[in-house]
Amino acid sequence: MCVKFRGSHILSVAQFERDDIQRIFRIADRMEPYAQRRRATRVLEGAILGNMFFEASTRTRISFGSAFNLLGGEVRESVGMDSLSLVKGESLQDTARVLSGFSDVICMRHPLAGSVAEFAAASRVPVLNGGDGSNEHPSQALLDLYTIEKEMAGRGRGIDGLRITMVGDLKYGRTVHSLSKLLRLFERVHVVLVSPPELRMPPPLVDELRASGQRVDESENLEASIAHVDIVYSTRIQEERFPDREQADSYRGRLRLNQAIYTQHCEPNTVIMHPLPRDSRAEANELDRDLDQNPNLAIFRQTDNGLLIRMALFALVLDVVDLVDKYAREVPWHTPNRGV
Amino acid sequence: MCVKFRGSHILSVAQFERDDIQRIFRIADRMEPYAQRRRATRVLEGAILGNMFFEASTRTRISFGSAFNLLGGEVRESVGMDSLSLVKGESLQDTARVLSGFSDVICMRHPLAGSVAEFAAASRVPVLNGGDGSNEHPSQALLDLYTIEKEMAGRGRGIDGLRITMVGDLKYGRTVHSLSKLLRLFERVHVVLVSPPELRMPPPLVDELRASGQRVDESENLEASIAHVDIVYSTRIQEERFPDREQADSYRGRLRLNQAIYTQHCEPNTVIMHPLPRDSRAEANELDRDLDQNPNLAIFRQTDNGLLIRMALFALVLDVVDLVDKYAREVPWHTPNRGV
Amino acid sequence: MCVKFRGSHILSVAQFERDDIQRIFRIADRMEPYAQRRRATRVLEGAILGNMFFEASTRTRISFGSAFNLLGGEVRESVGMDSLSLVKGESLQDTARVLSGFSDVICMRHPLAGSVAEFAAASRVPVLNGGDGSNEHPSQALLDLYTIEKEMAGRGRGIDGLRITMVGDLKYGRTVHSLSKLLRLFERVHVVLVSPPELRMPPPLVDELRASGQRVDESENLEASIAHVDIVYSTRIQEERFPDREQADSYRGRLRLNQAIYTQHCEPNTVIMHPLPRDSRAEANELDRDLDQNPNLAIFRQTDNGLLIRMALFALVLDVVDLVDKYAREVPWHTPNRGV
Repeated sequence: MCVKFRGSHILSVAQFERDDIQRIFRIADRMEPYAQRRRATRVLEGAILGNMFFEASTRTRISFGSAFNLLGGEVRESVGMDSLSLVKGESLQDTARVLSGFSDVICMRHPLAGSVAEFAAASRVPVLNGGDGSNEHPSQALLDLYTIEKEMAGRGRGIDGLRITMVGDLKYGRTVHSLSKLLRLFERVHVVLVSPPELRMPPPLVDELRASGQRVDESENLEASIAHVDIVYSTRIQEERFPDREQADSYRGRLRLNQAIYTQHCEPNTVIMHPLPRDSRAEANELDRDLDQNPNLAIFRQTDNGLLIRMALFALVLDVVDLVDKYAREVPWHTPNRGV
Repeated sequence: MCVKFRGSHILSVAQFERDDIQRIFRIADRMEPYAQRRRATRVLEGAILGNMFFEASTRTRISFGSAFNLLGGEVRESVGMDSLSLVKGESLQDTARVLSGFSDVICMRHPLAGSVAEFAAASRVPVLNGGDGSNEHPSQALLDLYTIEKEMAGRGRGIDGLRITMVGDLKYGRTVHSLSKLLRLFERVHVVLVSPPELRMPPPLVDELRASGQRVDESENLEASIAHVDIVYSTRIQEERFPDREQADSYRGRLRLNQAIYTQHCEPNTVIMHPLPRDSRAEANELDRDLDQNPNLAIFRQTDNGLLIRMALFALVLDVVDLVDKYAREVPWHTPNRGV
Repeated sequence: MCVKFRGSHILSVAQFERDDIQRIFRIADRMEPYAQRRRATRVLEGAILGNMFFEASTRTRISFGSAFNLLGGEVRESVGMDSLSLVKGESLQDTARVLSGFSDVICMRHPLAGSVAEFAAASRVPVLNGGDGSNEHPSQALLDLYTIEKEMAGRGRGIDGLRITMVGDLKYGRTVHSLSKLLRLFERVHVVLVSPPELRMPPPLVDELRASGQRVDESENLEASIAHVDIVYSTRIQEERFPDREQADSYRGRLRLNQAIYTQHCEPNTVIMHPLPRDSRAEANELDRDLDQNPNLAIFRQTDNGLLIRMALFALVLDVVDLVDKYAREVPWHTPNRGV
């Protein structure tokens, strides 16, 4: 069997080749019956995830924790920095040596770019990067691409030949950076980047995307840029990454998509994505709530897919992909979200 | 089989008719061997509770979490608002859509009245209200009434014909509001309300209680009001709900019950209840610690009953009431609180 | 069977006689296959640990929680004081009565000396002291002594006849206090105490150590004091226990050990220990990171041993020592730290 990621850290999208991504996606497919509670599995019964969120993130933390629970495992958690030995002068290496003795795998988020890799180097168990500052968030990039693949498959298409428009804060938005890196692995992709001029995607990322053979256009005009694409990927102004919070406020609400604009400008089946949370305050409203009835709004399918991707990553590094079904059992309780 | 609450949200005591309450109480009875660790059950093995406490409450949070563990399930938790996407402008509906994909059932507490119902409307799994501001806290009302039923049963009585005195902050005390709503479903109940005039129970609640046929008296005199009743239900000044904290302080300690007052004024078997925490600071001391040896002090039986009620609610909405025993097994470890 | 600690609180090292310690250590030995994931056990499946950390401590909290998970049990947790009913005037006794109804065993840390014993007196389930201020931290003392026993065994020696130097903040350092108490139970121990004069070990502790027949020397000179000993036990300046934080800073970095000093002064196999976290900031650097390649640096073996000791304590108070193996099963997932 292929053991490429057994016992490995998952730190960056740069670790993946096109074949790896396909393999992860096919494992994610196999997790769906468990995520939808049509079956349960005990394969990780007795295993422990150390869910170390040195920067708070309810959504991502619970997604990783639930993914591990869905495979039968237990979760020990830490949230925030206050309680951390780091404030008593402990090195990240020491923290890693100690905490990695308490669990079988660690998921870690940290506000500092590079810190997760530093931690992983001293860890005795696999570490999954749950986001390190503005650097990487590989499970988010994978779930975004997995969603694109599934949405395109429903239209009889693949990722090759994709036309995608990314909208919003392309400077600080970690998710669009990681997604653009993954898109380099595919063919004939056309990427349109729409942002205020000050929030353009960093030029090196644009250059690399072009160097990989993809077509890239940049624009400040939303309406003109969503007309002939398969995906509109909207993002939030990453106010917490701005040096100046007031400056962030000035960009909020400049690039809004609502149902009227969608109807007037988009092709009929254009998929709308967003990494969430979407800012629904009146002054921002980047994706209007009148889109909620639009069947092409894929934002909640994205978060559901996140659970599948994270289950797949755990199964991969702990090498239980082919054992999940062997430890399967019935679900005796009422499951209202079955089949959703 | 009756499936009335299968997959339902539990948001308000107004959802329950008298028959429903009886049914929940009989399910709670059946949970006792598990809560006392005479047996364990695996019926919810693999199920996930999302325990979302957007307002902190150690006692209630752990009671819900332990109740779910006692049925064999796993718990993912969030405490407080800081880490929440809501602060990035996410709507409560979006939060509900996302979080409800990560669990089989959600318990939620939130400081804002009505927020739990708003959340539930967008959730894909059942939501149990763990308290929304000064609005509702249905599991507390059920455990109070369940305790009353059990204490009365020990005296050969039922809830019909009950004589109960409620004491303290009847204006902001959510628990006495909910309990008075439930008491409307029974017959010949006599309710005496004792509070400072400024902290009287809201008149609409008093009117509804009278309209249901119950007798209601209001008073400011503790001693005269506890003489001929079955239950004295004392409450804490809800300082956190007061617009002005100093004002709250001025009421603290005005209506104190101790053993001497009890002996002089109460009938011999009068039951003493309190939703806890009781304020034992010298300036408050609403229920004196010299009552701790009084066998009629039911305050800790209340909290133990809370575990049974919450197990019953989970079993009900997840439709496993009749499966709990089927998945039962022995408890191999030493259980000191067996039979307590 | 010996049932000495069944259902008992573990509050202080003063509870243990020499035989008890040996018994706990032999139970800890038997936990190793489970901690190293060569096997898993379901013996505590369905049991609940209430992990109540009223003072934050990521490392100790997760060590206790993981130890319980490794035996198959579930963990409910609370961190910090904010959410606690204590702030609403609840007595520690009431808190104990309530919380002890939610779990089978409680681990508690609290900033106030004596508070854990007070809590335990009202608890209906066994309470393990996870540290109460500058008073006691018995599991840490046990893991330190267990580490000493194992390291000495590798040299064909026992604890009797041990030569140990304790270095650093001996005034506020709870771990050296507890360890010195345990050492009284053994024979012919030579203890050298090295600290700034203001941070000397409290004289009563020194007197008791001498009264038990041990030899004790005190010094301010590190180099001279580490020359002829088996163990150098270094500690951190306990800045959080100092009345004045600046005063704490003035002591930081005075007694540093690095590889050059070790090579020049220590016997070849001298073991280096530290309760962790070690302060690795340049101004402190009590144990230099150039010691990390030294095979006698036992600081991470200490923390791994902590997991075994805590598993042993849970098994002891819940009386499942002889059942752990009976409920054993295979580990199907990849375990990279196997055999570490």
